[in-house]
Amino acid sequence: MSTDTDATARAQLIDLAAQFYDQFELGEIPHMELPTRSKTNIELDEEANVWVYGDRTSTRSANSVRGARKLLKAVYTIEFLADQLEQDRSSTLRELYYLSESWDNKEAQFNDQDESNQLIEDLEIVSEVTREDFHMRPEESGATIMGPLFLREQTRRGDREIHCQEDVGEGGYQIPNNPDTIEFLSSDAEFILCVETGGMRDRLVENGFDDDYGALVVHLKGQPARATRRITKRLHDELELPVTVFTDADPWSYRIFGSVAYGSIKSAHLSEYLATPQAQFIGIQPSDIVEYDLPTDPLTDSDINALENELTDPRFQTDYWEEQIELQLDIGKKAEQQALAARGLDFVTDTYLPERLEEMGIF
Amino acid sequence: MSTDTDATARAQLIDLAAQFYDQFELGEIPHMELPTRSKTNIELDEEANVWVYGDRTSTRSANSVRGARKLLKAVYTIEFLADQLEQDRSSTLRELYYLSESWDNKEAQFNDQDESNQLIEDLEIVSEVTREDFHMRPEESGATIMGPLFLREQTRRGDREIHCQEDVGEGGYQIPNNPDTIEFLSSDAEFILCVETGGMRDRLVENGFDDDYGALVVHLKGQPARATRRITKRLHDELELPVTVFTDADPWSYRIFGSVAYGSIKSAHLSEYLATPQAQFIGIQPSDIVEYDLPTDPLTDSDINALENELTDPRFQTDYWEEQIELQLDIGKKAEQQALAARGLDFVTDTYLPERLEEMGIF
Repeated sequence: MSTDTDATARAQLIDLAAQFYDQFELGEIPHMELPTRSKTNIELDEEANVWVYGDRTSTRSANSVRGARKLLKAVYTIEFLADQLEQDRSSTLRELYYLSESWDNKEAQFNDQDESNQLIEDLEIVSEVTREDFHMRPEESGATIMGPLFLREQTRRGDREIHCQEDVGEGGYQIPNNPDTIEFLSSDAEFILCVETGGMRDRLVENGFDDDYGALVVHLKGQPARATRRITKRLHDELELPVTVFTDADPWSYRIFGSVAYGSIKSAHLSEYLATPQAQFIGIQPSDIVEYDLPTDPLTDSDINALENELTDPRFQTDYWEEQIELQLDIGKKAEQQALAARGLDFVTDTYLPERLEEMGIF
Repeated sequence: MSTDTDATARAQLIDLAAQFYDQFELGEIPHMELPTRSKTNIELDEEANVWVYGDRTSTRSANSVRGARKLLKAVYTIEFLADQLEQDRSSTLRELYYLSESWDNKEAQFNDQDESNQLIEDLEIVSEVTREDFHMRPEESGATIMGPLFLREQTRRGDREIHCQEDVGEGGYQIPNNPDTIEFLSSDAEFILCVETGGMRDRLVENGFDDDYGALVVHLKGQPARATRRITKRLHDELELPVTVFTDADPWSYRIFGSVAYGSIKSAHLSEYLATPQAQFIGIQPSDIVEYDLPTDPLTDSDINALENELTDPRFQTDYWEEQIELQLDIGKKAEQQALAARGLDFVTDTYLPERLEEMGIF
């Protein structure tokens, strides 16, 4: 299933290598320009509302042994990736690291996996091709979907047509590493509900919430994998469905929401590919802790610290988040999704979510 | 889908509560007897080759306020579970903890989740019904299967017939929380290959190893969830397939093998339900590190400590394990599964696994 995308990715990579030749020919020292990847060179793109790199760049140049070695490694990696695409193979970041031990030039081999990971990120940035399109698989696996969605997944063994309720077990449909192999065929869904914890995901499925409300329940499994964020974005864009994010009420969970909605600093070059700025936070909100008198735990020092950081984080500079975060600091408490069970096992699906969806104008 | 199993589980629970009534009637102080759950009361059952509790027991008695409160909590929990089974509902351990806040008697409410978790384990032991049969779901989700297996899963939405190669995407079949809802319809599999890491699982699937060798590839995802160990045992027992376990070459991974094969101290009461004593370790073996000159990392102090502990662990008291562990201590190195990539991406499926399977007499 070598595709057009593969051919484009391969061409972009080879272009990079070709630049070095051109530089040699012009009598220049080979070099590669990259955006500076530090916190000070990240900005919120006001229009798209996602994180992007600023204008500052750094240069990797062969004018030092260290720099020359970096470019050598880049060239070997480009060759490996180009071959991989041509042969329609794929590999993990860790395999790439180990595989470099078999390269004929010792200087091109990676010293540790941070180095090879970093290089792949650099190549993503300069070639504007995503890691998935290089056929590099993550170690982390994607999560699952349950809901009224019929899709076709292109696999190495042929196409598979799967309905994410009728053709799967209670565990749901397992999102593949590269969700761009999926085509959405049809859907009766009204909205997407991304859920942080497995316990809550199972509660919603047991209570038939996906069926009753036309919800595509996407399990985030804590901090979501790239594949999970990517498919959420595609579901939003292609099916024009509102995206809601349902997490615990604590600062770490708001970061999970942030990574779905605005992307992360680490992958600012991928925000357009991974982030869904239209995503809305459905709960648990600090105000829900008060309103529903939920069982709570006290905020720890590191929770307080994280909340205070969020108050100065441009992603959370809205009236809504300021009010919620300040309320939380004020009451000094946090709550888990499953704390809703204190009001009964059906409270979340009979009362909490329907009320929130109505408030948000979604259902 | 309230089943015979549900009715039996419910009856066993109600029997427990009935015992308290009988004790009251006889003028006895209500009490409950449990095997002592400490490391000194665990033994390896020589015949079944799994961990079980020894003969020592402890008594929970209402002869102190503390003891009376424990029994009160047990009675409330039994009532909750009996209702849950009757209504064909299920819940997570965390939901049970929060739900107790809605109980009318404050004394019956749990102080923390350890307490409710512990009580459910106690009830498993005295009633001889597993948590899954109480319809208590874990927080951890099961892993995935890919391979020549056709099964029927009983779900709340009706039965689903799924072939674990033809009807699933590249992510495979997601094992449900309670795999006893699965019936194996047919299988062309030759053996089961439980794989520790996602990267290696994906490599095997990409290379078509499940197809070429009739392997059911079960992803363990690190330390396997109960659902994953349960389905592995059932695949072994019901389809009469050899079970092999493929992990990194380090002491923590040998513990993963140990928990598949012999069970764990924490869940010694479930060994017969979860453990597969016939499981064999396929690799990576310390001797493979030497033979294939694999890329390694040095053993840390805690690795060395863990290996030394394993040498005195009855589960590893075999010539094979003593030789391998002593060799590893001797070379002072550990290796990851994906280190095989240093010999090329196909080495694992073309050479390493076929050779090991032949040595082990499996293929």
